[in-house]
Amino acid sequence: MATTLPLLNETVPVSCCAPLVREPIAADDAADLARRIKALADPTRLRLLSIVASSQEHEACVCDLTNPVGLSQPTVSHHLKILTDAGFLSRSKRGTWAYYALIPGALDDIAGMLKP
Amino acid sequence: MATTLPLLNETVPVSCCAPLVREPIAADDAADLARRIKALADPTRLRLLSIVASSQEHEACVCDLTNPVGLSQPTVSHHLKILTDAGFLSRSKRGTWAYYALIPGALDDIAGMLKP
Repeated sequence: MATTLPLLNETVPVSCCAPLVREPIAADDAADLARRIKALADPTRLRLLSIVASSQEHEACVCDLTNPVGLSQPTVSHHLKILTDAGFLSRSKRGTWAYYALIPGALDDIAGMLKP
Repeated sequence: MATTLPLLNETVPVSCCAPLVREPIAADDAADLARRIKALADPTRLRLLSIVASSQEHEACVCDLTNPVGLSQPTVSHHLKILTDAGFLSRSKRGTWAYYALIPGALDDIAGMLKP
């Protein structure tokens, strides 16, 4: 069976530019990269992203994400929306619950920009 | 001649933990990583870091950093202090000017956390 890719929203990152240690990053690229990095610059979002990413199939139900971080579902959903808007997670509704999956390559794009 | 390492301040990051896609990141590690990532979550700081990192010897004089980003020296120095406090840059004074150098491995630490 072919691997299905998650639906991507409009804010999904694309590899845009050379790593920032190789040549000065352009202003537009810096603005885009900073926007994506900002979504990661929060302890709760890093923990949620890590739980999703390390789950089976890199996917987790929102119902399994509230307990580990000890926050209410609205708060967790708010953080997940920021990660989704920044292109790190995709969201799908199945029955009662929303499921979040790591978008392949999204973290690698950021890591690739930071490494030589 | 032996390579000299820059002086490190107390906030220098150390490799603390497994990549966040392999296992859920611990709360303490998430807080530390978020703090460091936050220093990068700004377009001007990314540009300054990139100019320093891509300069010869990965070092640049503050006097050469104001023009490229089109900001005053106090503003540039403020951003450079945040990058220094977060352990990405080291600072040394030589004559009139301050010089900033990329701390070896600091960006790799972040990149390594994000990649599988």
